[in-house]
Amino acid sequence: MPKTHLAQILGDVYLLRVDDEETRYFEALWEIGNKGITYNSYLLMSDDAVVLLDTWKKTYADEFLENLRELVDVRDVTHIILHHMEPDHSGSLRKVLEENGFRAEVLGHQLSKNMVRSFYGVNGKFRAVRDGERLSLGGLTLEFIHTPWLHWPETIMTYLGDRGVLFSGDAFGGFSIPSAIFDEDRIVPGYLTFVKEYISTVIGNYRQYITKNINKLMERNLDVKMIAPAHGLVWKNDPKAVIDFYLKVAEGVPEKGKVLVIYASMYGACDAAAGIVIRELERNRKKPIVYGFTDSERPPISGLMGDAADAESMVIITPTYESDVFPLISYITDMISRKIPGNKPILILSSYGWAGVAGKRLAERFEIAKFPVVDVVEFHGRPDEDSEKRIIESTRKLVSYV
Amino acid sequence: MPKTHLAQILGDVYLLRVDDEETRYFEALWEIGNKGITYNSYLLMSDDAVVLLDTWKKTYADEFLENLRELVDVRDVTHIILHHMEPDHSGSLRKVLEENGFRAEVLGHQLSKNMVRSFYGVNGKFRAVRDGERLSLGGLTLEFIHTPWLHWPETIMTYLGDRGVLFSGDAFGGFSIPSAIFDEDRIVPGYLTFVKEYISTVIGNYRQYITKNINKLMERNLDVKMIAPAHGLVWKNDPKAVIDFYLKVAEGVPEKGKVLVIYASMYGACDAAAGIVIRELERNRKKPIVYGFTDSERPPISGLMGDAADAESMVIITPTYESDVFPLISYITDMISRKIPGNKPILILSSYGWAGVAGKRLAERFEIAKFPVVDVVEFHGRPDEDSEKRIIESTRKLVSYV
Repeated sequence: MPKTHLAQILGDVYLLRVDDEETRYFEALWEIGNKGITYNSYLLMSDDAVVLLDTWKKTYADEFLENLRELVDVRDVTHIILHHMEPDHSGSLRKVLEENGFRAEVLGHQLSKNMVRSFYGVNGKFRAVRDGERLSLGGLTLEFIHTPWLHWPETIMTYLGDRGVLFSGDAFGGFSIPSAIFDEDRIVPGYLTFVKEYISTVIGNYRQYITKNINKLMERNLDVKMIAPAHGLVWKNDPKAVIDFYLKVAEGVPEKGKVLVIYASMYGACDAAAGIVIRELERNRKKPIVYGFTDSERPPISGLMGDAADAESMVIITPTYESDVFPLISYITDMISRKIPGNKPILILSSYGWAGVAGKRLAERFEIAKFPVVDVVEFHGRPDEDSEKRIIESTRKLVSYV
Repeated sequence: MPKTHLAQILGDVYLLRVDDEETRYFEALWEIGNKGITYNSYLLMSDDAVVLLDTWKKTYADEFLENLRELVDVRDVTHIILHHMEPDHSGSLRKVLEENGFRAEVLGHQLSKNMVRSFYGVNGKFRAVRDGERLSLGGLTLEFIHTPWLHWPETIMTYLGDRGVLFSGDAFGGFSIPSAIFDEDRIVPGYLTFVKEYISTVIGNYRQYITKNINKLMERNLDVKMIAPAHGLVWKNDPKAVIDFYLKVAEGVPEKGKVLVIYASMYGACDAAAGIVIRELERNRKKPIVYGFTDSERPPISGLMGDAADAESMVIITPTYESDVFPLISYITDMISRKIPGNKPILILSSYGWAGVAGKRLAERFEIAKFPVVDVVEFHGRPDEDSEKRIIESTRKLVSYV
């Protein structure tokens, strides 16, 4: 049985949260391991209306209904708002509507209408809400804001005007299962690491929309007192903190001195090169964070992406594999190119047995993705004295570039 | 301590084998898990010469020397033959030469000369051997055969003429740690699965050279009585069996009825499509082998490649991810395109939320790699009744294509 939480987070606003400790690969892709993730749904109760905002992943539909029943007769739910259609939030919709007798009106962006049908076979009442539209429901004033690509195109947020609560969907959420509901000082710093990881993996490709949509929210002069996202902590003590943090990650603001060193090593040659780079970085008072893919280690690419987001610069070291970049490094390069801001200079090293081609190809790919490539050093087999010198020089070049 | 084996496999021919149970990712890539792999070195002793053929991975250099010392004073080794330079076999070279006092002559393809220096800093006596060259050493007649791209360009084999032993390097080897030294009937069938996996992953990209080099060996009319590869079983009962098996895998000869179904599923839509395909395949008396990448499962791509090699056809099911093919499916497509013969018809299915683009892109990639794409079915969200019909029809199309 998953752990669930039911909490009154404000007068007539309830949080329903489930702690998903089962998902090992979020979106079947990101290795969240045993960190887990939460799905947050919210319920608003007024005199005339019972408004449900999002649900839980389908796996937890039964538990969702059990929790919902503790707050309300499910037949009394009058409105269900879908902030976006991704099934980790919309997955229990059908079961809720079945118990509800399909009485509730489903609200969402007009693009969600077809998806409600094709994802869940639901052909019921659907109301498309427009950007900026307000809806008064028995003393509650809801304002809908279209925030496209956070992280699906049809994403909306709901602002509960009277209370200053912004229900933000995926935005302002993070991985992990925080030990509290709210943004308590003692847990925020640790949790932000998982927020960073979530942004760089799940939303990274749409990072310019983080900035755009936050600007859009700002322009409305909303008096946001609480941010209630669909994953992780609810921000009531310092909602501005998570907005600023999202902006910072979206823009790739670097942590001073942090250098991400990514290498794969089939038989130790690239491992040796990584050692040379790391020692030289430390000599220059840099803080290398190292991800090594070897015959015994395969670190999570999810964590690597989080560390790429606020790195000051990166070193990528690849073996030559079948006259090309090593496949795992190629995969990681694809992920970084899509999801990480290109304001990080990159040093590329590669080991070859036959011909130095992998380093140049990798450089081209990063250049196309608008990352400045500071240098490319290719060496035959294990780095010999001369290669070591070239690696040290190029590391210094990277250090002085920043 | 790793398990090691020292065996006299013929009058003056010894096997030195180590069972590597530590490597989880062979070449830092292939998930051999706890199957393991062996490194086989051989020693020939004659009146005037002590000939070492290959060594072990560097990790086991100390154990290698311990075993070698049981057979011979290491200072007495006169020749070291390197069949190819990949460090899982050449890795202990330096330590052996140090204990040997650099007396032994190192023999290999002339392309190996520079690599011996740049991989191990060894600048000693090196003799480049030519294709077809014979060498008589105190009653032993060695014949060297250049077998390029099995699996490095400088690969040679050594044929011990008097005894009919072919020392074949990587070729005719396989993954896993067989419970015996020789090709005993009771273990061969199970072991061949790991041979297939080894071929499709490590040598797959060079599969045309398997056929070419076997033809070359055949043309020489060698009287091969025993095949002694650098990994896995020594073939003395039926050496022809492993030659035929290598040819079969290289050519992708299908197992009748075997259909490989590969899918990724972020939230269950592609999972549902896989279910429809699998039921229809079974209705048609096909044998689906399924690899599903989900939020809880990530099966080994190494095993998948083995199953691709002798599949009769394949079904690939991908979610749409950021307007493209799902990254893991993209990675797998790259591996299959490079390493698996294109004689397998493919059915492609894809689920989309916004627009059907992933299926078409995947089809293009397989077509470029010369795989016949039988059909592409794209469906919105979870397959509805109509999509189910289209999936069933296309599955029948695949079945009747074969």
